[in-house]
Amino acid sequence: MDKIFSLEDILSLEKQKRTNLINSIGGFKSVGLVGTINAHGQTNLGVFSSIVHIGAHPPLIGLIFRPSNPMRDTLANILETGCYTINHINASILAQSHQTSAHFKADQSEFDAVGLTPHFLGNFKAPFVQESSIQLGVQFKEKLEITSNQTQLVVGEIVFIKVPEKCVGNDGFVNLELANTLTCSGLDAYHSTQLLDRFSYAKPDKPLISLLTND
Amino acid sequence: MDKIFSLEDILSLEKQKRTNLINSIGGFKSVGLVGTINAHGQTNLGVFSSIVHIGAHPPLIGLIFRPSNPMRDTLANILETGCYTINHINASILAQSHQTSAHFKADQSEFDAVGLTPHFLGNFKAPFVQESSIQLGVQFKEKLEITSNQTQLVVGEIVFIKVPEKCVGNDGFVNLELANTLTCSGLDAYHSTQLLDRFSYAKPDKPLISLLTND
Repeated sequence: MDKIFSLEDILSLEKQKRTNLINSIGGFKSVGLVGTINAHGQTNLGVFSSIVHIGAHPPLIGLIFRPSNPMRDTLANILETGCYTINHINASILAQSHQTSAHFKADQSEFDAVGLTPHFLGNFKAPFVQESSIQLGVQFKEKLEITSNQTQLVVGEIVFIKVPEKCVGNDGFVNLELANTLTCSGLDAYHSTQLLDRFSYAKPDKPLISLLTND
Repeated sequence: MDKIFSLEDILSLEKQKRTNLINSIGGFKSVGLVGTINAHGQTNLGVFSSIVHIGAHPPLIGLIFRPSNPMRDTLANILETGCYTINHINASILAQSHQTSAHFKADQSEFDAVGLTPHFLGNFKAPFVQESSIQLGVQFKEKLEITSNQTQLVVGEIVFIKVPEKCVGNDGFVNLELANTLTCSGLDAYHSTQLLDRFSYAKPDKPLISLLTND
């Protein structure tokens, strides 16, 4: 049996139920810890599930920020320093990662509060998460306002990648499962994955070839 | 051993390797089949892995379109009719779904070419994919250009949801695994998932509670 929701049905749902429904109905999401620092050296860490690939040439990645007043620390820090990190979540830091979404006091770093380790690389200002297998350093490029609901799309250039060597294939493909990277759904659910298949580049009238058969 | 890529390393990679690396390094992605129709009644179906949650009040979802000249059919159809569908991918339609990414002739519908069934609901113009467990009807709201690489973010309002009744919890959370929804990584890899945990709303100085313990 299927359940049907019209727009009216969706809009008349109790708020928390609508939030859960719409956050989960789009599918599994990229999730990561976004690390920033402000001009006074205070670090900040937050879990984000609205990470989106924007392009590979140049290497761009996007983050959606909900409207908020005052501006959230993460976004304020990105605009202040021009840089941030995106760190993958694995099962061994799952609870700590989710706990970064709590509203801690302004003078408390989420790194200390949840027990994750900030580390700094070269002259890159923003803190990476030492416990993450895959760590990205990102340089702010632009911010766009989505007028339909006043959310912000922040686009950045990936200027640094740290990834376990064993995870990177000869073709550049990253085996995220080997890195123990998780995915999420809704606001609070985390999942491990199992690779089903990789396919050849699709062409009309040619059957797809599995890239796994030659492994 | 870790592998480190600086921006210079990334930019100097052979193009296909960079494409694979950057498309997979951001994490697992929402993936779905986007169904559209043009003014002459020709249907179109394409696989998209850059679907992003934009907001729940109103219910908004985003899609990233790469720059292309001439404009891709999917984007042209969305702007022409104002509506489109997003249909989840499950293992039984995996190869067909990936095959929609082939460049078929302009007068050939991907539905026919790959063997998926278009179906229409009420007066909603765009075709849904009958074989998908979860089907969304979306109304176009706005298009933003990301100036860093001329990609387009298309934002739409979710005006229709069809989901198996058993997948929707009392709190509105959708169990995507029960719907057999897959996730993807990179350009060509598809994965099933396994739920690890769901957590309570995070609060400072309070330990997280697993929402699964009471099941």
